[in-house]
Amino acid sequence: MITQTADHTDIRATNLAAVLGYLRREAPCSRAAIAAGTGLNKATVTSIVGELLERRLVRETQQTQNHVGRPATLLVLDGSAYATIGLEIGARGLTALGCDAAGEQILRWHRAGPGVDAGPAKTIAAVVALARRAISTVQSSGRQVLGITVGVPGLVNRDGAVVLAAGLGWSDVPLRAELAATLGRPDIPVTVDNDASLGVLAEHLYGPYAGTANLIQLTGDTGVGAGIIVDGRPLAGHLGYVGEIGHLRLVPDGPACGCGRRGCLEALASLPAILEQVDGSIDDDPQHQLETLIRRADAQDAAVTKVLTEAGTHLGHGIAALVNILNPEVVLLGGAYALLAEHLSPAIDKALREASIAPDAGGCTIAASAFPHTATPLGATAHALTPLTRGRLPAR
Amino acid sequence: MITQTADHTDIRATNLAAVLGYLRREAPCSRAAIAAGTGLNKATVTSIVGELLERRLVRETQQTQNHVGRPATLLVLDGSAYATIGLEIGARGLTALGCDAAGEQILRWHRAGPGVDAGPAKTIAAVVALARRAISTVQSSGRQVLGITVGVPGLVNRDGAVVLAAGLGWSDVPLRAELAATLGRPDIPVTVDNDASLGVLAEHLYGPYAGTANLIQLTGDTGVGAGIIVDGRPLAGHLGYVGEIGHLRLVPDGPACGCGRRGCLEALASLPAILEQVDGSIDDDPQHQLETLIRRADAQDAAVTKVLTEAGTHLGHGIAALVNILNPEVVLLGGAYALLAEHLSPAIDKALREASIAPDAGGCTIAASAFPHTATPLGATAHALTPLTRGRLPAR
Repeated sequence: MITQTADHTDIRATNLAAVLGYLRREAPCSRAAIAAGTGLNKATVTSIVGELLERRLVRETQQTQNHVGRPATLLVLDGSAYATIGLEIGARGLTALGCDAAGEQILRWHRAGPGVDAGPAKTIAAVVALARRAISTVQSSGRQVLGITVGVPGLVNRDGAVVLAAGLGWSDVPLRAELAATLGRPDIPVTVDNDASLGVLAEHLYGPYAGTANLIQLTGDTGVGAGIIVDGRPLAGHLGYVGEIGHLRLVPDGPACGCGRRGCLEALASLPAILEQVDGSIDDDPQHQLETLIRRADAQDAAVTKVLTEAGTHLGHGIAALVNILNPEVVLLGGAYALLAEHLSPAIDKALREASIAPDAGGCTIAASAFPHTATPLGATAHALTPLTRGRLPAR
Repeated sequence: MITQTADHTDIRATNLAAVLGYLRREAPCSRAAIAAGTGLNKATVTSIVGELLERRLVRETQQTQNHVGRPATLLVLDGSAYATIGLEIGARGLTALGCDAAGEQILRWHRAGPGVDAGPAKTIAAVVALARRAISTVQSSGRQVLGITVGVPGLVNRDGAVVLAAGLGWSDVPLRAELAATLGRPDIPVTVDNDASLGVLAEHLYGPYAGTANLIQLTGDTGVGAGIIVDGRPLAGHLGYVGEIGHLRLVPDGPACGCGRRGCLEALASLPAILEQVDGSIDDDPQHQLETLIRRADAQDAAVTKVLTEAGTHLGHGIAALVNILNPEVVLLGGAYALLAEHLSPAIDKALREASIAPDAGGCTIAASAFPHTATPLGATAHALTPLTRGRLPAR
């Protein structure tokens, strides 16, 4: 637990994180079990548990352990006094989700966005307005807001600036800094991350494939992106620009992409590309347009089936690149792809199996996301808990 | 260090690994420094260091620390009593490397291989013959052989079976089991891994980019493969089938690939593909053919330059897929690509920059491997040390 150069605060945080981690895996459990399980001495565990009780992050239960001897007081995690807020900026609008630190959902709102053509300034104003309302609702419920994380369909650097979001028409927007300045709440940390990276976090923590060590989730509602968990950990890369599968060139000299190139997966098989192929354009109400698409697909409309089969084939080739490079155990179809999964899957499976070098696509399962509407904001609420899980207690 | 369920042997191994790891990073250092740096108590450190001294894995030096007080005996790693053997099976032949556990090279041999058409049985016999000679040479030098690791250009499963090696014409060869049975030395563990995965290990440990957290090495001598380090750790995926960038389809309906598909990167830009484009066929002596190619490229032969520029463009697109998905800090050109690097790099850089979605290719540097001939067997010698670095002492 202790490294030679760590100062006292670091050691306390490391030990606190170890106690919280043990409780997350093993609770209910006694102080003695925590000491044995973490290798910390009993005095340290008693002191840390005391602080966690006082801060209402842990509570005692009357339950007793099932063995001989005097009954021990058992501990469980508590998180009901704290909450985080997750927000998603997408072409279909803004979504806000509030969860307490135990994972209980407090609020879930969707707002039609300011539109792709509105530019970053209007979107930032709309996000901050939504965040303020969410903070107010969370605080009215008696909880302290620990942080806000915002997901964006684009390249996000380590400072939370959006380097490029072709689907939104953004480049070089210092989103985190501008959101924090406009919000004006220095007590509430704001972070920004890629939408797919946050989405796969939700699946990895809460979905039916939770805990899968090599897990990928694809989203295609605005751009096409992949959130990637490798060996149990979120992939981050050198500067954070990972999972940009949307700009794999599948068809040399294919249709023009928002990024300025041609034949990218995104130009062939993103939701906007699919809607445009079916209807000739994108409506002002893409949500309604998607519902119509799903109804027509369910009714086996020939034109829609043809477009979805072609999109599925392109997605299968894109997933094959992920499979050949990363050998995931599960690839989840997220967002609108989840709603269209039964129509896309046959073509995806066929193309994937043809284009994967490993037999049986390296054992990869393709499935629909459990959170087609909320994976990104749900993952964002978990991401905003990161300082706490690393042992940094909330500001008082 | 201690987990609740670990038995005594596990705890000893974990603590031993911690002491060896600390020594690798910090030696020369005192027993007291090891205790402070690992969090182990002094009695445990004294006992472990005693065992390591007795097993000649550590030795004492007369050096003293540069501060007031009585001089402490300092410890350094020793590895001169033990060695591992790394072997590479490639289309250009077999390579064997022996290193002692301190990383000192003991032997390095290259043998013309039995040829791609010889089939697995002849190759296994040739590998075992080479391994026996290497074991004998290492033992004559007074060292104990800790293990043998063999690198193969293909998909290797967790049992060390080669599921598919298109460049060798192999499928479903239980290589590890057959090598171990033919060698008949149960005291010497044999492991098998993908050549590129072993090659990048050599770069990550010993090359000029050692320690780079997000590092990739490409090889193209037989198939085209990528060895991948993500966040400081070798990428393994669900079943071990990672880095198969050679079968990314770059040109729909392009030239036929050994895997049965068309237009794969490997069919366009592997060394065999380059040689065939230049000379119309692959010679019996591909090593000599490669040297001729390099001479002609150095002399700016127009036909060779054209082929290498096209191959570089395809490689740039393949590397762009890695960059868009993984955002590596460094991509190394390994094997024959390293020898051809100055001729391939301009086209690689141009295509990579055009096809990467992140500005400046996400900060990625392209460079030539430091070990064009020996990355795989060198990485294999390091891989064979894995049990020791995990704290399992050699058999007596």
